Amino acid sequence: MTADSGQRTADSKRQFAVGVDFGATRIKMGLVNNRGKVLARKVVPTLKDISPAEFVRTVKNEITELLSDSFKCRDCVGIGIGAPGLVNSQRGMIQYLVNINGWENVSIAQALGRRIHLPVRVDNDANVMTLGELVYGAGRGCKNLVCLTLGTGVGGGIIIGGELYRGATHAAGEIGHVAIEQDGRPCACGGMGCVEAYVGNRRIIALGKGKFSSPKQISDAARRGDRFALSIWEQVGTHLGTALASVVNLLNPEKIVIGGGVANAGGLLLDVVRKTVKERAMEGPAGSVKIVKAQLGDNAGIVGGAVLAFSGQRTAFSKTVR
Amino acid sequence: MTADSGQRTADSKRQFAVGVDFGATRIKMGLVNNRGKVLARKVVPTLKDISPAEFVRTVKNEITELLSDSFKCRDCVGIGIGAPGLVNSQRGMIQYLVNINGWENVSIAQALGRRIHLPVRVDNDANVMTLGELVYGAGRGCKNLVCLTLGTGVGGGIIIGGELYRGATHAAGEIGHVAIEQDGRPCACGGMGCVEAYVGNRRIIALGKGKFSSPKQISDAARRGDRFALSIWEQVGTHLGTALASVVNLLNPEKIVIGGGVANAGGLLLDVVRKTVKERAMEGPAGSVKIVKAQLGDNAGIVGGAVLAFSGQRTAFSKTVR
Repeated sequence: MTADSGQRTADSKRQFAVGVDFGATRIKMGLVNNRGKVLARKVVPTLKDISPAEFVRTVKNEITELLSDSFKCRDCVGIGIGAPGLVNSQRGMIQYLVNINGWENVSIAQALGRRIHLPVRVDNDANVMTLGELVYGAGRGCKNLVCLTLGTGVGGGIIIGGELYRGATHAAGEIGHVAIEQDGRPCACGGMGCVEAYVGNRRIIALGKGKFSSPKQISDAARRGDRFALSIWEQVGTHLGTALASVVNLLNPEKIVIGGGVANAGGLLLDVVRKTVKERAMEGPAGSVKIVKAQLGDNAGIVGGAVLAFSGQRTAFSKTVR
Repeated sequence: MTADSGQRTADSKRQFAVGVDFGATRIKMGLVNNRGKVLARKVVPTLKDISPAEFVRTVKNEITELLSDSFKCRDCVGIGIGAPGLVNSQRGMIQYLVNINGWENVSIAQALGRRIHLPVRVDNDANVMTLGELVYGAGRGCKNLVCLTLGTGVGGGIIIGGELYRGATHAAGEIGHVAIEQDGRPCACGGMGCVEAYVGNRRIIALGKGKFSSPKQISDAARRGDRFALSIWEQVGTHLGTALASVVNLLNPEKIVIGGGVANAGGLLLDVVRKTVKERAMEGPAGSVKIVKAQLGDNAGIVGGAVLAFSGQRTAFSKTVR
C-alpha cells in the first residue's frame, strides 16, 4: 500500500489529461497537466456534419501527434470531451448534437477509447466549461456555483455541493431556457420568452439595427461613449439579469461565472447584470451572490475536458464529478 | 456492537418524533412514528406577533401534554419545527419570519431545547414540507425533486441527490420568486413579475372580480362547468406552468410535487400546468418530469417536522438531510 502510494505520487507530477472541445466550427484539443496548465494544443476545423467515424479518426490522429512529441502516453490519464448537445455522461454517449446532424445515441467514449486505448469521458460542453472554471478558474473553492456561457446560444452548468449537477436525464443547467416573458420571443428550443432569445449573439447584433456586425463592435463603440451601443448592453444586461434573478432566488448560489464570447463585453454587460440582480432578486441571496467573468477564456473547453478526464481517476478530482 | 444494534432495533419500533408546523395563524403539533404515521396532534391559534418566549412556552406546554398520555419521552428522538421565514437550519436559528414581527436571529432550537430537554431542529416551512413529501408522501423514492406549496405565498423546496438543497445562505428553493414577466406585477419580495404575484391566493380571488371569495368556490363553480371559473384556473395554470418550465429546464427534476390549499383545485389546475410545461420546456426534461399533487395535505408540516427531527439521529433518515 505505502509503496504503491509513493509510486502514485511520483507519477502524478508528470500526469496530464487530454481535453477535447468539440465545437460546431472547430475542434480544439490540448494536453493539460493536473494543475490546469495547457502544455500543448491543436485546433482543427470541424467538417460540416462530421460523422462519428470522422470525428474519432481526426481526434485520434491529432492526439497521437500531440502525444508523440515530448509527452508519454503512460502519463496520460485519459481524454475528456465537451460536446454541444445532450450527453449521457454516465454511458459516454452523445444523444444528439445541436448544430451537427447525424449524431443520435453515439457511444463516443467507447468508439474513441477502442482506437486510442485510453479512458474517455464525455459531457455537455457547458458542463465541461463549468468543471474547468470550478477547478482552475473563477469558481475555485466554490461549493454552489452557476456557470453560463454566452454565444450564439446560452449554455449553463450547475455545481451543487462541489459536484456537477446533471439532473434526472442529463439535461440540467439550461440557463438559456429560463423564461423572462410569458408571451415573449419564440426560442429555438420550441419554448417562448427564453432568455437565450433575448441575449444570444444574433439577437444582440439585430439590436444594433445594421450599425454593428459583432458584439465586439458594440463594445468598442460603447467604450468610446456611443449612447446607442451603451443602450444595447443596458437592454441585454437587463434581460440576462432578470433570468439570473430567478436563478438566484431558486438556487441561492455563492457565485455566478459568466463566460463565452459575449462576456468579453466585460463591465459594460456585467455591471448591468449585477445591478438588475440586486434590484430584482431577494435581498439575502442577491446580497451574497458574486457575479464574475470566467477566467479560462478560449481554453475553458480544453481545461474542463481535462478535469473531466482526471475525474475518472481516483485523484483529488474524483470528488468533483460523480 | 451486535447487542447494541439489537437494542436499537427493538427501541426503534416505539420511536417517534414531534413535528411542529409554525404558521402565522396556527401552530400545529403532532407525534409521528418512524413510518410517518401521525399518532396524536394538537392545534392552537398563533397569537398576533407571538414572541419567541411565548412560542417556546406554548410549544413546551402542548408537547408535554401530548407526551404525558401514552407516549414515553425516552422514545421521542426530538422535535422538528417548520417556520415561515428565513432559517439557518445549521445553527437552529430563525433569521426572520415573514408575517410575524419581532423575530430576528432567534436561536429557537437552543431556547426550546433548554426547556424541553430534547434535540430540536428547525428549517423553513417549505423545506420541511418538502422533506415530508420526500420521505412519506408523493416524492417517495425520488433523488431529484422540486416541491411547491401554493397559498397566500408560493413556497418551495429542492431535493438534489436525495438531500435537501439549502443553497449558500439557506435561502434556496424560492420557486415563488421565479419571474414570468420582466416588467410584470410588483411582488411582495420587492422584485417584479414573480410567479407568486400571479398565482398567490389573493391574486386568484382578485381574478374572480368579486364573484368568488376563495379558490375553493372557483373550483366548485368550474366543476359545475362555469366558464369564467374555468378561465381563472386556465390563467393561473399557465402562469404557474411558465415558471415551472423554467425550473424544469434549469433543474431537470424527476418530479414536481404541488401542495398547499390552492392545489386542492386538483386537475383543474394541474392539467393546465402539465400542458404548459410540456409546451414550453425542452422536450427531454419536459417529457420525463412528473407533476403530481402532494399527498400529506394538512399534516405535511407535522410529518415533515418529524422527518427533520429523525434526520438529526443516525437512522435511515440521516442520509436525507445534511
